[in-house]
Amino acid sequence: MVDRPFISLLTDFGSRDPSAGIMRAVILGIAPGANVVDISHEVAKYRVRDGALLLWCAAPYLPVGSHVAVVDPGVGTERRPIAVRVHRGDVLIGPDNGLLLPAAERLGGIIDARLLTSTAHRLPIVSSSFHGRDIFAPAAAHLATGVPLAALGPELPIDGLTRLPWPGPAVGPGELAATILYVDTFGNLKLGAETSHLRAALGELGWGTRLRLSWPGPPGAVVAPWCETFGRVATGMPLVYEDSYGRLCVAVNQGDAARLLGLAEDDRLTIRVAAAGS
Amino acid sequence: MVDRPFISLLTDFGSRDPSAGIMRAVILGIAPGANVVDISHEVAKYRVRDGALLLWCAAPYLPVGSHVAVVDPGVGTERRPIAVRVHRGDVLIGPDNGLLLPAAERLGGIIDARLLTSTAHRLPIVSSSFHGRDIFAPAAAHLATGVPLAALGPELPIDGLTRLPWPGPAVGPGELAATILYVDTFGNLKLGAETSHLRAALGELGWGTRLRLSWPGPPGAVVAPWCETFGRVATGMPLVYEDSYGRLCVAVNQGDAARLLGLAEDDRLTIRVAAAGS
Amino acid sequence: MVDRPFISLLTDFGSRDPSAGIMRAVILGIAPGANVVDISHEVAKYRVRDGALLLWCAAPYLPVGSHVAVVDPGVGTERRPIAVRVHRGDVLIGPDNGLLLPAAERLGGIIDARLLTSTAHRLPIVSSSFHGRDIFAPAAAHLATGVPLAALGPELPIDGLTRLPWPGPAVGPGELAATILYVDTFGNLKLGAETSHLRAALGELGWGTRLRLSWPGPPGAVVAPWCETFGRVATGMPLVYEDSYGRLCVAVNQGDAARLLGLAEDDRLTIRVAAAGS
Repeated sequence: MVDRPFISLLTDFGSRDPSAGIMRAVILGIAPGANVVDISHEVAKYRVRDGALLLWCAAPYLPVGSHVAVVDPGVGTERRPIAVRVHRGDVLIGPDNGLLLPAAERLGGIIDARLLTSTAHRLPIVSSSFHGRDIFAPAAAHLATGVPLAALGPELPIDGLTRLPWPGPAVGPGELAATILYVDTFGNLKLGAETSHLRAALGELGWGTRLRLSWPGPPGAVVAPWCETFGRVATGMPLVYEDSYGRLCVAVNQGDAARLLGLAEDDRLTIRVAAAGS
Repeated sequence: MVDRPFISLLTDFGSRDPSAGIMRAVILGIAPGANVVDISHEVAKYRVRDGALLLWCAAPYLPVGSHVAVVDPGVGTERRPIAVRVHRGDVLIGPDNGLLLPAAERLGGIIDARLLTSTAHRLPIVSSSFHGRDIFAPAAAHLATGVPLAALGPELPIDGLTRLPWPGPAVGPGELAATILYVDTFGNLKLGAETSHLRAALGELGWGTRLRLSWPGPPGAVVAPWCETFGRVATGMPLVYEDSYGRLCVAVNQGDAARLLGLAEDDRLTIRVAAAGS
Repeated sequence: MVDRPFISLLTDFGSRDPSAGIMRAVILGIAPGANVVDISHEVAKYRVRDGALLLWCAAPYLPVGSHVAVVDPGVGTERRPIAVRVHRGDVLIGPDNGLLLPAAERLGGIIDARLLTSTAHRLPIVSSSFHGRDIFAPAAAHLATGVPLAALGPELPIDGLTRLPWPGPAVGPGELAATILYVDTFGNLKLGAETSHLRAALGELGWGTRLRLSWPGPPGAVVAPWCETFGRVATGMPLVYEDSYGRLCVAVNQGDAARLLGLAEDDRLTIRVAAAGS
């Protein structure tokens, strides 16, 4: 038992409704000594991939603990409530819809998966539409008090867990194609590709190298330098950078790239070195 | 004295302004060991009934403790600052405008009501517009440190506390009328009626029974099945279900019912069993 | 070492992205016993002055501790990461762009300023775009565990720190000019002037004195009484009052003054006593 066990929460419940606060309250009722941290409750509604990506971002920075994630359009149907222990020691808890797996892989991969069936570790009444409160939060809290994972339910085959489709990069000669996975609150465009993919496609890139980004539909293209950080271009100008999670990202210095370039999640970009004079 | 006394907060202060954070800071300055949980700070501005409803939802899931609620258009006027102890042992704190009473009743009813007059348990300077910071948060924090409720001020007659108007259901033969009390962040329509009212009006209902909901003004009506949970209908289709708090609720699977049906808070619906073939 | 060291956070990261939650997690990984309070993460993007104002508001109500603020358009450039100890005992941590100074002055002024260079008190990898996570949060957490400020980096000359332009009031005979510094979530207009300035311009004012506010552009003027609190005027009517931080403020009782009067941040108002009959 650690002195202040760590529990994180990530949902699409929003901060206006009381759902997220109720989950925190349920946890602290069972495990009053827990440190409970909200990663986000503003995941776009029903967007399982967005939730999976944000949990993947946060995972390496979270203390070892229990991490509850709920983006769960299938709540109350046959989709399974699960908890998975990863190699680093954490337990990830939520619906078996693919939400947990990218983060689980980032934390070393799953070594034990459980179906959450134990009635002793749920609330006494389980609703059909709020498993975050009735199943997932209590599971995390009981783990925090020292209950072993195996007590929460029977083992599940790890390779039978649900996986999400995930649009990967395409590395070609002198060309990288990548999908916009997420637009953050600054309007920065987070791509489904890492710097290593850009280098594999375009070779070593010096700071300031001008890149041409193109996509179907107007305006269709923009030239932006490869930069270390926002302030390396003038206010209002675009740039391509490695974000703080190691991914490629398109931004506008002190501006909203999504709005200014007319781009959105799921749009696919092609990146090349810009021709001289373009 | 409990080891980690529990305090919850519910306001309409929003999360952009620093007001809610300042209340947390004031509490932890007085009671550093408290577990402080935000239920919501995004209650619609000045909507006392919305705040009362959200507190009613959360109340049974909160550990026994002090619960501060502030939706307070009358701040600084003659409306009274109060704290009420309920049968379960909690103390609810806020303005005497009806905000606290539904939750108080759900926690067993009020057994002691106090007017918050003790200057020793307020901040040294009390403003005319931020009693959450100056009166209510300090009162909760002092209770958390072991101060008895009676020290906060003189007793008030319980039957003299302000009550809110609350639109109830109308149960008729084969017909239930109910008002939309709240639209949650998913667009689900929370009705001022419970499943028992629906059964009293329409008799026992099997899963899948088709219900006809009608209201004045276009489109005026929709047919939706009585379902256990969202995923029992196709994506984009409406349903009627019992929400996780026991109330009747109208939703659209993975959609926004309020927007799709053109309905809003305070609209009144009539619910019947749909005619065959309708 | 205090038992539950206090750390506050203020950023423009928004509550949808995981950035603020990651900062909390990083802090609790280093200092699991800390009380971490969010003042706001919804400061308008890149608005350093807004952040400085909100921190100034909150500062006197925060327990003595470490306060991290990040509104940081220059992240990753030459702008310096700093920590400043103030006379009250707190340490303020963030970018050297003026964000911290108004709050520092309100807490007694700076007595020690440091450049955050210690690699032992950062995360192992420092990104170019998320110093909140990599530099500022770890610094606060290490201070909370008892690390002395001097260990975080070399001393900086206090008078070399960056200061923000700040639009002050202009007190004339019978006339006060003041700029709208901030519009809160209620739509209240927070002016860059205090009650003492209003008195210096207009003399002693009894409650109910009618004031004329004018500004360039339509509608150009409104008459509003000087009131103790919102409820002293009818619903929907304007008033001028001293807000709970001691500043002059224009509001509409249960309405949104910014929207109703067509005013916004940086607009400059002239305030006089209204002529009889106007």
